Amino acid sequence: MAHHLIVLAAGQGTRMQSDKPKVLHEVGHAPLFAHALASGAALEPERTVLVAGHGAEAVRGAAGDIDPGIDVVVQETQEGTAHAVAQARTALDGATGDAFVLYGDTPFIRPETLQKMAEARAAGHAVVVLGFEAADPGRYGRLVVEGDALTRIVEFKDATEAERAITLCNSGVVAADVSVLFDLIDAVGNDNASGEYYLTDIVEIARARGLSATAVTCDEAETMGVNTRADLAAAEAEFQRRKRTEMLDNGVTLTAPETVFFAFDTWVGRDAVIEPHVVFGPDVTVESGATIRAFSHLEGCHVGGQAVVGPYARLRPGAELSNGAKVGNFVEIKNAEIGEGAKVNHLSYIGDATVGEAANIGAGTVTCNYDGVFKHRTEIGARAFIGSDTMLVAPVRVGDGAMTGSGSVITRDVPDAALGLGRARQENKDGFARKLFEKLTARKAAKNNGAV
Amino acid sequence: MAHHLIVLAAGQGTRMQSDKPKVLHEVGHAPLFAHALASGAALEPERTVLVAGHGAEAVRGAAGDIDPGIDVVVQETQEGTAHAVAQARTALDGATGDAFVLYGDTPFIRPETLQKMAEARAAGHAVVVLGFEAADPGRYGRLVVEGDALTRIVEFKDATEAERAITLCNSGVVAADVSVLFDLIDAVGNDNASGEYYLTDIVEIARARGLSATAVTCDEAETMGVNTRADLAAAEAEFQRRKRTEMLDNGVTLTAPETVFFAFDTWVGRDAVIEPHVVFGPDVTVESGATIRAFSHLEGCHVGGQAVVGPYARLRPGAELSNGAKVGNFVEIKNAEIGEGAKVNHLSYIGDATVGEAANIGAGTVTCNYDGVFKHRTEIGARAFIGSDTMLVAPVRVGDGAMTGSGSVITRDVPDAALGLGRARQENKDGFARKLFEKLTARKAAKNNGAV
Amino acid sequence: MAHHLIVLAAGQGTRMQSDKPKVLHEVGHAPLFAHALASGAALEPERTVLVAGHGAEAVRGAAGDIDPGIDVVVQETQEGTAHAVAQARTALDGATGDAFVLYGDTPFIRPETLQKMAEARAAGHAVVVLGFEAADPGRYGRLVVEGDALTRIVEFKDATEAERAITLCNSGVVAADVSVLFDLIDAVGNDNASGEYYLTDIVEIARARGLSATAVTCDEAETMGVNTRADLAAAEAEFQRRKRTEMLDNGVTLTAPETVFFAFDTWVGRDAVIEPHVVFGPDVTVESGATIRAFSHLEGCHVGGQAVVGPYARLRPGAELSNGAKVGNFVEIKNAEIGEGAKVNHLSYIGDATVGEAANIGAGTVTCNYDGVFKHRTEIGARAFIGSDTMLVAPVRVGDGAMTGSGSVITRDVPDAALGLGRARQENKDGFARKLFEKLTARKAAKNNGAV
Repeated sequence: MAHHLIVLAAGQGTRMQSDKPKVLHEVGHAPLFAHALASGAALEPERTVLVAGHGAEAVRGAAGDIDPGIDVVVQETQEGTAHAVAQARTALDGATGDAFVLYGDTPFIRPETLQKMAEARAAGHAVVVLGFEAADPGRYGRLVVEGDALTRIVEFKDATEAERAITLCNSGVVAADVSVLFDLIDAVGNDNASGEYYLTDIVEIARARGLSATAVTCDEAETMGVNTRADLAAAEAEFQRRKRTEMLDNGVTLTAPETVFFAFDTWVGRDAVIEPHVVFGPDVTVESGATIRAFSHLEGCHVGGQAVVGPYARLRPGAELSNGAKVGNFVEIKNAEIGEGAKVNHLSYIGDATVGEAANIGAGTVTCNYDGVFKHRTEIGARAFIGSDTMLVAPVRVGDGAMTGSGSVITRDVPDAALGLGRARQENKDGFARKLFEKLTARKAAKNNGAV
Repeated sequence: MAHHLIVLAAGQGTRMQSDKPKVLHEVGHAPLFAHALASGAALEPERTVLVAGHGAEAVRGAAGDIDPGIDVVVQETQEGTAHAVAQARTALDGATGDAFVLYGDTPFIRPETLQKMAEARAAGHAVVVLGFEAADPGRYGRLVVEGDALTRIVEFKDATEAERAITLCNSGVVAADVSVLFDLIDAVGNDNASGEYYLTDIVEIARARGLSATAVTCDEAETMGVNTRADLAAAEAEFQRRKRTEMLDNGVTLTAPETVFFAFDTWVGRDAVIEPHVVFGPDVTVESGATIRAFSHLEGCHVGGQAVVGPYARLRPGAELSNGAKVGNFVEIKNAEIGEGAKVNHLSYIGDATVGEAANIGAGTVTCNYDGVFKHRTEIGARAFIGSDTMLVAPVRVGDGAMTGSGSVITRDVPDAALGLGRARQENKDGFARKLFEKLTARKAAKNNGAV
Repeated sequence: MAHHLIVLAAGQGTRMQSDKPKVLHEVGHAPLFAHALASGAALEPERTVLVAGHGAEAVRGAAGDIDPGIDVVVQETQEGTAHAVAQARTALDGATGDAFVLYGDTPFIRPETLQKMAEARAAGHAVVVLGFEAADPGRYGRLVVEGDALTRIVEFKDATEAERAITLCNSGVVAADVSVLFDLIDAVGNDNASGEYYLTDIVEIARARGLSATAVTCDEAETMGVNTRADLAAAEAEFQRRKRTEMLDNGVTLTAPETVFFAFDTWVGRDAVIEPHVVFGPDVTVESGATIRAFSHLEGCHVGGQAVVGPYARLRPGAELSNGAKVGNFVEIKNAEIGEGAKVNHLSYIGDATVGEAANIGAGTVTCNYDGVFKHRTEIGARAFIGSDTMLVAPVRVGDGAMTGSGSVITRDVPDAALGLGRARQENKDGFARKLFEKLTARKAAKNNGAV
């Protein structure tokens, strides 16, 4: 059975107090709607339609970055959820199989939950609605069920006393055969207080047509939606809680899980250790047995087995640390390979570079990779020894087993085994410091007297 | 109606285990008593009297820093709260209107609560006492009320079984007409177990004189006092919780609110993003759309719209970032303006300086602003390109569109569009590195053999 | 009465998903078994026997690091707790007095609890078992007591309905006379489902022999064991909670206790202030009145009174800060003494060095202590002024009151009061920057056209 996703992502999110469309706000470094897509991916959807509205062009761009196959349609006016789903009609023209309606601001529906909905469809129910037992049902819509059958969804304000006592609430997530779904939606009216077309109405319409509807349930936590910045922070916290648990279950040591922040795609191997206060941006893999020390920040990088990173190491996109490499404090690595067992321990910037195995980079080293217009590469050979405060003016190469004198500006290649040196000879001027301090101190005294 | 504040701040705070007077311990980078003053500020007080005792001179200094108009009086001996209030008599000599008694170690009374007390005074009650419904009344004093009337405040140890069942407890905060307050206090005796003069006694005295008293209530959280370091940490946590909520409500994205620490006066614009692990000291404003990345530390600075700060950026007092400026990792900015779109991305110290728009500062740049006695300024022109590891020995100017060679020590001005360069020529010594390593390795081997 | 410890530390900890033996995983920077030893230390044990199994050699090494007096015996096959205890027999040969059986994966038994067990032994009970009232007894073994007497320990699966209603559960910790303990263990059989020898059986055996047994109780929190990475993280959290409380009680200000991580042996003096986001490794002492600012990382170091560290300071082993010293942002100190009132405020690496009192180290200073094979020392005199970006090529000495010019590479000693200087003269090349940018921009344009 083919599956298709319709993800509603048109809302303005007024309560976010933001110029950015709500579904583009991020959790775990991925936009909210991408989490809904990730849940839906378990259904291996044939077509995916994202219904955008506010900030539609920005949403289209973000969707394209994630998967160019996503069909972004625009709901020009916001006339309710049924109206939003109706915008997907053309994009699903000719499609057969089931459509699942998801929400771009609801990031935590589990793949297993959608599978359960698919099974309920396969069991012959025309419309499958996802519900949850609410701890505090409040003003949620209620699912009215009789045995297996979902008879209707009633809005809180329209509910009788008896119906309000129901604790099974509506998540809004729906599955139905594509053509049945659009047929039902055609029959939805807007004869209600807000003049909107409600997707929930399809249950009663289906029943009236003799089609069966049923409810599948999930944990309330899965249905957490984002409407405010506080909700967004709560969603981030829930995402991180799940990710931390997953890491611990996989045999990663997290000294203080609550201080470590992962991205949606962070991968860390068994027996890796992550100390307190570490932040992962997108696209990071850390191999088994590596140690990420406190206050490190990693994005778009790969850390080999037994490598040691930090404290205070910043790995930027393109940083590739081989096994046993060491990157220490106040060091920034960008678009650079650090060879096996090589060390960049202190206060350095290594960008657009290759550092050979077992090379040692002294404190204060900088690869001068930018001339104001172009970026150039630096190559440092195996077992090379870069003296402290060496400026490597790229493009330049320091050979295998070569050395640079501390404080040198290296503008030409240093051959293998050679020493590259560029510095002025030291002179000592006896008594000069004493005289200078005396002069400055006298000037200060004069100034202070003048000020009184 | 004129209002006046009497803030009691004389306690030693023995349980703080500190040489510092209790009210000088800080929450949100402001001393405890300043929070009480901030609550009281909503009453637009005509006179403010701070009753100091332990560490009175230090308290006087701190109060003067906040507002030289505060009258600090000293309670030489600690003889109870009524005795403390009595010390304010001279300072309020001739004052008319209402006096509000607040506590320097109770930082969270809301302005709205004090307004409610002012309204109760305006409604004709001679004495207004602030109470709260305690979740666990424990040993708090109880407020005995009959209808609108507060009949007395009873200490726990003197309370009957029936009175102990009361859950409305005494916060100690009191409002009364200035002269009435001091008249009542004159009548307070110290005929009790501890030999102290209790402010709470004024209620019964007022009633005996035919004056009406009433209670106004607030949330228990507002009455949280600080007596231990654990209390201080709890107060800081409560302060941060409020401040984070305020930020989220104003449309700021906080990825992980619980890891971000604000000062009492931090201001952040809508659609700014604050990543995890960020610390704000006092006097920081961040404009709309700016991004403060992880592990940043800001004090006394201004961050323009769309500017990007961090990770690992430290902005110290006087740092002024224009719109779109970028300050990156391991960079310290102090007393310096960074122009529109200028970049200081890596490992630099920029102090006492002006950086022109669109200038680019290379890694490892230092403004050498201190000669051991005086500080001097550095000026960097618009679109200037400062090569990595440039030392700018102030006072010095690098002109518009000018450039410095990496590794240069710039001691004289560089004209507009010129290149300033100061470095030794590189020499390569062939085979030198190999020979040196062989020699050192041999020496090490010899040493190790010797050691056996 | 002599005391002896038998610490069971043989388990594989399969659920840890780790190649490392479970008891070597760390809490507060000490391996789990060390915490059990620390609890037991209060008993001033004469002999301590650690029963290792999985990873026995690694455990032996770690135990030797902590105390060479620990006797590590190996349980070759895992045949139950009684079998494990039996492995300690030879090591305790000839010992008299009491043996306490503790668990290497149970770090929080309080010394006071063990004292209570010792008292129960002294009161004449042959076997003393530690129990706890479980909030949720679940599948724990239950302690069946009659008055003072412990009649038996019943496994959950063997318990009657009535026994399952018991909430007093077995911690596994046991005390008995050494020879009695081994006699009882000799009588333990393995005629049960798993074919293991259970230590718990000794209670019934003792009773059958007319010996008395009793239970001593402790808080459930003390019996927290570690079986998974999540347990390990929970144990770390509990450890930190205790340590933070201890610090607050001792008069240390922790602005945000939940973001500060201590090691097992961290010592901080009264009126020290620790800002948010600080990490302590092992062996750190901070004197009274010192301030550790945000984002600092300290290991194996000593911070004198009134010293100020950070933000972003990294103190590594051997860093010794005298009173009033200042170490600022992006500074790494290793194996170096920083004199009274000396300042290392910005972006520096000071390793294997002595910095004299009131010396001032400029931004970007590096002690070049490593020649690729040996480490050498740098000495900086009192009141010396090290210019920014000075490379101090060790071994080297800068004298008292001496100075170095910024950007200098100092390879020879600088006498007292002298200026050491080594830099090329600055030249300005007029118009060069403009021409270079024009050339580069033109090349870029050409390239971009070519790309179209």
